[in-house]
Amino acid sequence: MSTLPDTVLSELELQAIELPSWAFGNSGTRFKVFGTPGTPRDPFEKIADAAQVNTYTALAPTVALHIPWDKVEDYDVLRKHAEDLGVALGTINSNTFQDDDYKFGALTHEDAAVRRKAIDHHFECIDIMHATGSRDLKIWLAEGSNYPGQADLRGRQDRLNESLRTIYERLGDDQRLVLEYKFFEPAFYHTDVPDWGTSYAQVSTLGDKAMVCLDTGHHAPGTNIEFIVMQLLRLGKLGSFDFNSRFYADDDLIVGAADPFQLFRILFEVARGGGLNNPDVAFMLDQCHNVEDKIPGQIRSVLNVQEMTARALLVDAEALRAAQVSGDVLAANAVFMDAFYTDVRPALAEWRESRGLPADPMAAFAASGYLQQIAADRVGGVQAGWGA
Amino acid sequence: MSTLPDTVLSELELQAIELPSWAFGNSGTRFKVFGTPGTPRDPFEKIADAAQVNTYTALAPTVALHIPWDKVEDYDVLRKHAEDLGVALGTINSNTFQDDDYKFGALTHEDAAVRRKAIDHHFECIDIMHATGSRDLKIWLAEGSNYPGQADLRGRQDRLNESLRTIYERLGDDQRLVLEYKFFEPAFYHTDVPDWGTSYAQVSTLGDKAMVCLDTGHHAPGTNIEFIVMQLLRLGKLGSFDFNSRFYADDDLIVGAADPFQLFRILFEVARGGGLNNPDVAFMLDQCHNVEDKIPGQIRSVLNVQEMTARALLVDAEALRAAQVSGDVLAANAVFMDAFYTDVRPALAEWRESRGLPADPMAAFAASGYLQQIAADRVGGVQAGWGA
Amino acid sequence: MSTLPDTVLSELELQAIELPSWAFGNSGTRFKVFGTPGTPRDPFEKIADAAQVNTYTALAPTVALHIPWDKVEDYDVLRKHAEDLGVALGTINSNTFQDDDYKFGALTHEDAAVRRKAIDHHFECIDIMHATGSRDLKIWLAEGSNYPGQADLRGRQDRLNESLRTIYERLGDDQRLVLEYKFFEPAFYHTDVPDWGTSYAQVSTLGDKAMVCLDTGHHAPGTNIEFIVMQLLRLGKLGSFDFNSRFYADDDLIVGAADPFQLFRILFEVARGGGLNNPDVAFMLDQCHNVEDKIPGQIRSVLNVQEMTARALLVDAEALRAAQVSGDVLAANAVFMDAFYTDVRPALAEWRESRGLPADPMAAFAASGYLQQIAADRVGGVQAGWGA
Amino acid sequence: MSTLPDTVLSELELQAIELPSWAFGNSGTRFKVFGTPGTPRDPFEKIADAAQVNTYTALAPTVALHIPWDKVEDYDVLRKHAEDLGVALGTINSNTFQDDDYKFGALTHEDAAVRRKAIDHHFECIDIMHATGSRDLKIWLAEGSNYPGQADLRGRQDRLNESLRTIYERLGDDQRLVLEYKFFEPAFYHTDVPDWGTSYAQVSTLGDKAMVCLDTGHHAPGTNIEFIVMQLLRLGKLGSFDFNSRFYADDDLIVGAADPFQLFRILFEVARGGGLNNPDVAFMLDQCHNVEDKIPGQIRSVLNVQEMTARALLVDAEALRAAQVSGDVLAANAVFMDAFYTDVRPALAEWRESRGLPADPMAAFAASGYLQQIAADRVGGVQAGWGA
Repeated sequence: MSTLPDTVLSELELQAIELPSWAFGNSGTRFKVFGTPGTPRDPFEKIADAAQVNTYTALAPTVALHIPWDKVEDYDVLRKHAEDLGVALGTINSNTFQDDDYKFGALTHEDAAVRRKAIDHHFECIDIMHATGSRDLKIWLAEGSNYPGQADLRGRQDRLNESLRTIYERLGDDQRLVLEYKFFEPAFYHTDVPDWGTSYAQVSTLGDKAMVCLDTGHHAPGTNIEFIVMQLLRLGKLGSFDFNSRFYADDDLIVGAADPFQLFRILFEVARGGGLNNPDVAFMLDQCHNVEDKIPGQIRSVLNVQEMTARALLVDAEALRAAQVSGDVLAANAVFMDAFYTDVRPALAEWRESRGLPADPMAAFAASGYLQQIAADRVGGVQAGWGA
Repeated sequence: MSTLPDTVLSELELQAIELPSWAFGNSGTRFKVFGTPGTPRDPFEKIADAAQVNTYTALAPTVALHIPWDKVEDYDVLRKHAEDLGVALGTINSNTFQDDDYKFGALTHEDAAVRRKAIDHHFECIDIMHATGSRDLKIWLAEGSNYPGQADLRGRQDRLNESLRTIYERLGDDQRLVLEYKFFEPAFYHTDVPDWGTSYAQVSTLGDKAMVCLDTGHHAPGTNIEFIVMQLLRLGKLGSFDFNSRFYADDDLIVGAADPFQLFRILFEVARGGGLNNPDVAFMLDQCHNVEDKIPGQIRSVLNVQEMTARALLVDAEALRAAQVSGDVLAANAVFMDAFYTDVRPALAEWRESRGLPADPMAAFAASGYLQQIAADRVGGVQAGWGA
Repeated sequence: MSTLPDTVLSELELQAIELPSWAFGNSGTRFKVFGTPGTPRDPFEKIADAAQVNTYTALAPTVALHIPWDKVEDYDVLRKHAEDLGVALGTINSNTFQDDDYKFGALTHEDAAVRRKAIDHHFECIDIMHATGSRDLKIWLAEGSNYPGQADLRGRQDRLNESLRTIYERLGDDQRLVLEYKFFEPAFYHTDVPDWGTSYAQVSTLGDKAMVCLDTGHHAPGTNIEFIVMQLLRLGKLGSFDFNSRFYADDDLIVGAADPFQLFRILFEVARGGGLNNPDVAFMLDQCHNVEDKIPGQIRSVLNVQEMTARALLVDAEALRAAQVSGDVLAANAVFMDAFYTDVRPALAEWRESRGLPADPMAAFAASGYLQQIAADRVGGVQAGWGA
Repeated sequence: MSTLPDTVLSELELQAIELPSWAFGNSGTRFKVFGTPGTPRDPFEKIADAAQVNTYTALAPTVALHIPWDKVEDYDVLRKHAEDLGVALGTINSNTFQDDDYKFGALTHEDAAVRRKAIDHHFECIDIMHATGSRDLKIWLAEGSNYPGQADLRGRQDRLNESLRTIYERLGDDQRLVLEYKFFEPAFYHTDVPDWGTSYAQVSTLGDKAMVCLDTGHHAPGTNIEFIVMQLLRLGKLGSFDFNSRFYADDDLIVGAADPFQLFRILFEVARGGGLNNPDVAFMLDQCHNVEDKIPGQIRSVLNVQEMTARALLVDAEALRAAQVSGDVLAANAVFMDAFYTDVRPALAEWRESRGLPADPMAAFAASGYLQQIAADRVGGVQAGWGA
């Protein structure tokens, strides 16, 4: 394929994928966090790094913040800093898993005082959203239990609903709450929002501004994730994506790294269901770069999303429908696979150049010397990680 | 524990677990179905066998039918036959997976004529329900696809909703529809109702008489099933259970055989959520006895449910709550495990005897010579299986 | 990529993938086997269909037989029939799972008489191998148990070893035994050869002519299959592949259909370890075509193996090593992915044409009218399936 | 059951379960490590805590050390300290996952200098073993890769073999090397010793003093772990157990907490295969107490092993064999389950008292005030965790 159809290119031109500020800090496993020279030491440096991704790809115009990791004195200053670098501040992510009070829950805690504290934290996030101009408050509920009997599953669910409602009511008119679900971790026996059904059931009781966040790494083995994408779009409740990938239990690898075909199927259903470049369905990365360089890791990820979106858009919808209707299994699968196996990279490289972008953003970034520069500049201080 | 508290016994006295007629026919894998001498050749003989389970346990007063496997000329005769044996006819299970027309779907099929046929089959089931006095129409949707691209996931979901609505509207005032979900099989890439969320989303649009059926064997590895029990009870949509067990992908082993502790946790949440001996939450077995004797296999299963219910009811609720509230993980878990590890069998044996039942139903049935009798009597004819 | 390097093409030219005769018969699930017009009714017709795959692809010069499904009076006649159609008879697959005697095991059975029968069956298979000129005896051990306690795991393992030894000693000098492992099914609690370790431990005690057969669909979720490929090649014990694919528990879909990238990784390790076009490492399909047409299903499968082998051979080994040695994670991954994302199909089409083959074997076969012809011709008789 | 047979009690009397020193330090997830007042600050305090477990149970006479976490100036002093508290020093665990050099491997690293460093670390461990009188060197290989292509799987396996051989040759005559396998984590794409087959293949080339370590939490979902126990005992290569439990991907919960029946089946196969109280098969815990108190967590764990061993020993071997031989599936399973469901706790409590131990070790420890004492005493300093 030497060129891509205009219909595809016009969609790709609109594509925007939010980056997580924490992808630029150090991360690791419970066993070890490896540091890297040049790792940002504050939100300003994280945003500077994130802006690099956008500079080389024009795909990542916003950066999500994590509170309290990204708390600053003056969000106007941070916002201005981002704008100067060509990006905007995006989704605000709350954190209710790193205070000692939250050992046994936050929004679900038995103790009303702890719940109150967790709700207040979300109020603070909403205040920050007003300051940053962010639309979405993302709640990943790292709550649950490790042993059967430890927790009252039902009571927690009810308290969760009450807490969420309180937070929801504080939202501004143009703000949304997206509730992420996760199969397991950091709790190991039960998590309070383990599956899309629970997130859906919870947000459905809140109102139109509450939506489900689908993290592609948060499912049981064998789960058909594109089916969930289809269903949530059908129900009008797919609020956002956290893109990443996983082989087994790790959920934060570079998007598309573990199963490119799954990413293709997901993006096909996104397009099929009207979720592409739909403001209601935010695209975001949620990744950790434990062993690879962080900025190029993010560049690789957004390019993977872009390339796979192009492939998904190449599916010949008419031929596919015809084969499906006639029950021709092999023909339908062939139409589908033909798009997947098409090498869109040369055409995308050309198209990038035509827009004044580097044909090969990975190479261009590597050649820029930025990594060497920050390694030299960012000396002293404490490197950012999941606790800072 | 030499005796069980009256509060426990009074619950156990009410317990009723429906048996599936097909458990008494031959079953097997795609590789081989092993037959057994004495296997029923028609619905009357299946019900006779099912009645044996109730005779020895007083736990299984109803028998579910599968249409068309259990079609008879005159359901009054069948009903009378059942009543003479001390049991009643129960849930009607539809079958939309064994006609050639259904190769690519039934209620979801691209072709309106096939959907119509499948809907009409459900209408016939409803007619039979009127004849048999059955309350529940259980729909297990064996529909899906084997290859990506083969099917239009979204279109099928919409058609499913339309088909279900049509069936729902035909229900009598006292009848219900329960929609079963299944993670995979017989379709291998996608199933149209793969998870509780989908079943819930579908039945929620229909009305109060539509509920979710939870089959304990139909989940992805690692799924916390008791959480789903809790959630569906909380949402008021847990209509029925299909009890069985599984180690990996087989879902039709004797209940409690693979993971007794999981069964305990499930039954604890049933009791916790008010689902025990609640007419809205039907208990049923869905099992195949591929290598073991069928009637004792079913006796074993209902006894396993009974014994585990007793254990679940022994959990010291007050002590558990106190430990949960205080965040004493080990104490809470200990209260929980104490009930699980309690050997309720001697007390149950005594209690059975006090009610005129055999202390050891398995031994009493074995001693009865029934298996030898049917092996001698049921000569000739075609043994029932999943296709008859 | 308009052309493929000669080094790649010369490997592809040697590639041979054995077809299973049973792929051309009907197959299905425990719930239903859907038939198709034109399905072969005997081994001769199966081989005729298999030969079509080779005609259009030049990739499938041999056909594996399954005994007793493919028993004939005179194997010389069958062999001549195959040769006339341009193919040869290949691996002989034994069957010890469809006799009533084998309900509780065959080579592992408690009863020496049953073991003897199963061993004799393998002797018969070896006799057939002499008649057909087959090298490999493939043993898939469909043995195990459904319930804890049912079987003496250890005793079975010891008996298995004794039975295998007896069979092994009967092998001719140029014959081999390959032992397949399978995670589960048709037994659901334990299988007697569940993993590569067990197959390896068993064949290691037999001798050089005993090898492991790796079926790509027979692993637990999340298993890194290419690692096992690497390990078995390293240990000199990878005897053959059964190629297919699976999403969850189904293991007999078209190869590469579920996870093309996994197939790529597997073939990369095959090449890396010297297993490509190595006579010691037989390539074979093991698939069922439940809902799709069988002959084109097999054509699609061998093409998928061919295309993915081409991609695996395109990995720039030198660049990869350089990146690995330097710890450049992203560069190493990029080299790897670059090969995977390369669209080799146009170059392969051209190459096929240059060898007198159709550029698009699927289209050429469809245009041939063969399916219509056999549907018209093969009227009456009993269609072949897993029981015939 | 009011008493346990003497044959059971005499086995239980011999039972010894090694405790991991690190279980007494803080641990957590990648998201958060919660600290507890009284947490040990050095190896001496860890051993003091471990000794408490033995004091109340007489089940845990040895403590495993982790190097460098438990490095001390003078191991004679540490040994004497342990002996004074009634325990001995046990297995030495090496650590090759927390140095920056080991980011891309240790014993498998591309760079010979890093491998040398890792080998030297093991030499140091062996030196410590001589000082502590430890028999076993346990190697958990936390090595692998996160992305396909990142690592040369085959080269790493070969280098691993060479490194292990070098370490093996350094062992004293009475020392052993046990090689642990782990399905995933901290590497997410491949681990260098992912399964028992790899550990077995590696240690088999080394010699009689090299054995496999089976950690009960390190398997893919659905794996039949007792089968592996059986197989390794049969092959004479089961060197030690790391007991813990897991629901999904967490592998360090209290033993028996997630699936008591699995623990029963494992211990049954241990006994069946002669692994019980066999000096060649070391029993050890490997656990983290993230949310529960550590000392009682360990007491609970060793009691769980003891109780389940008692149940496993109660299986009526003769009746089981008779049922197995006759193919009576339900009878065999019933014999098996009867032992599992027997409540051995009252008899064990009595037996403990008869030996001068507390009937209820959990209650006795709680009443001792030890936790309050260490919380008061251990003020200041740095609490031990996985990095110290």
